[in-house]
Amino acid sequence: MSVASESGIETGVETATDTASYAPTELTVPTRGRDRASYDQELVHAILDEAYVCHLGFVRDGAPVVLPTLYGRVGERLYVHGSTGSRPLRMAGGTRQQEEDPGLAVCLTVTHVDGLVLARSAFHHSLNYRSVVIHGTAHQVTDPEEKRTALDALVDHVVPGRSADSRPANAKELAATAVLSLDLATVSAKMRTGAPSDDAEDLGLPYWSGVVPLVKGYGAVIPSADLAPGIDTPDYLSAL
Amino acid sequence: MSVASESGIETGVETATDTASYAPTELTVPTRGRDRASYDQELVHAILDEAYVCHLGFVRDGAPVVLPTLYGRVGERLYVHGSTGSRPLRMAGGTRQQEEDPGLAVCLTVTHVDGLVLARSAFHHSLNYRSVVIHGTAHQVTDPEEKRTALDALVDHVVPGRSADSRPANAKELAATAVLSLDLATVSAKMRTGAPSDDAEDLGLPYWSGVVPLVKGYGAVIPSADLAPGIDTPDYLSAL
Repeated sequence: MSVASESGIETGVETATDTASYAPTELTVPTRGRDRASYDQELVHAILDEAYVCHLGFVRDGAPVVLPTLYGRVGERLYVHGSTGSRPLRMAGGTRQQEEDPGLAVCLTVTHVDGLVLARSAFHHSLNYRSVVIHGTAHQVTDPEEKRTALDALVDHVVPGRSADSRPANAKELAATAVLSLDLATVSAKMRTGAPSDDAEDLGLPYWSGVVPLVKGYGAVIPSADLAPGIDTPDYLSAL
Repeated sequence: MSVASESGIETGVETATDTASYAPTELTVPTRGRDRASYDQELVHAILDEAYVCHLGFVRDGAPVVLPTLYGRVGERLYVHGSTGSRPLRMAGGTRQQEEDPGLAVCLTVTHVDGLVLARSAFHHSLNYRSVVIHGTAHQVTDPEEKRTALDALVDHVVPGRSADSRPANAKELAATAVLSLDLATVSAKMRTGAPSDDAEDLGLPYWSGVVPLVKGYGAVIPSADLAPGIDTPDYLSAL
């Protein structure tokens, strides 16, 4: 798995007419490894919903910054949140309602590593992975209803159903929390699956070749020491 | 786990005199969550060595791009690789030997998610995590010896010891592969561990609170179907 190039200037790509796909654009059609790219909405949603952190990139004083952060998805919109004092959230400035506000140019990337790919040749070593890259402009969410929806989505992204089983944010917490939204429009998924792809002339070499799958799971839950008596582990956790 | 702010303008931070720490800089001292930041070299190395992918951010046409990619570490230097035709690698331009070459400004971030943090309040939901953020300038590696060392490190990052048990890159493969180096200088780690931190007045609320640990492991290896006869699974894989 190597540094890929995303932005081939692409003239021959047809815009997807299937409503379940994102339209490929200059930003999302790779110059290389094009057979690994996908614009399928269902695949994109599945990759986004399975991960816990995204890597949010933006430009500060001309230099790139990449920060890991939790996110939530509501339909075709992603949300991230932070303190109202945090720099990227202040940089995002105004709202969609203020047309003069440019928002914050971001690139939001989510990646799963699914396996180690061991080829006979060093050159063909790789990782099996699934990733989504979203380019766009993030805007502050100021509508109180959308902000609540976004914060619920962030909590439900940690554990589905959890927002209904916790104390909702109060006015002070809402005021201290900034939320950014990013539309799923300029989006692509990329993945590698399966066996190593060795060159034909290397197949007889005396090196083991294959895939080591990476597996993820949940450990036994650790209740807080100060949990009020009589509170059992909720079903939505047992179901994980 | 929310969008943090990294670049507080910081006047009161003492430069670390311990040789096993990175010196905090304006770029690596957060304005918020400062108690979660660390400059410890051993911690940084451990976080880097345990992950498989980094998220590499750079600026293209004024906009941020964040791509997942494999990496390798040799001492205080990280390496990423890609096709010589890939855009970011071409953007990195010349070499350290060419003083006039500016290289490519990057931010390279590595994150582990260790647990889901379920507080009584929606507001205090979070993730337990460990991350490293590196700011710097990436340069193309042109010295043939360093390039070979870097490619070995990339393969050994997939599985320690693997580079010695695979066919080394040949001249054609070396020529097709570009390698970027990034020094570990402007570096910080950040982590959250332990129980949820609910407000005192919420402790009696009837909501479960605690941590769900995330665990990672390896599945049974999948040998390539065309493996030459008599090749056993190597010990370095059984040891994973």
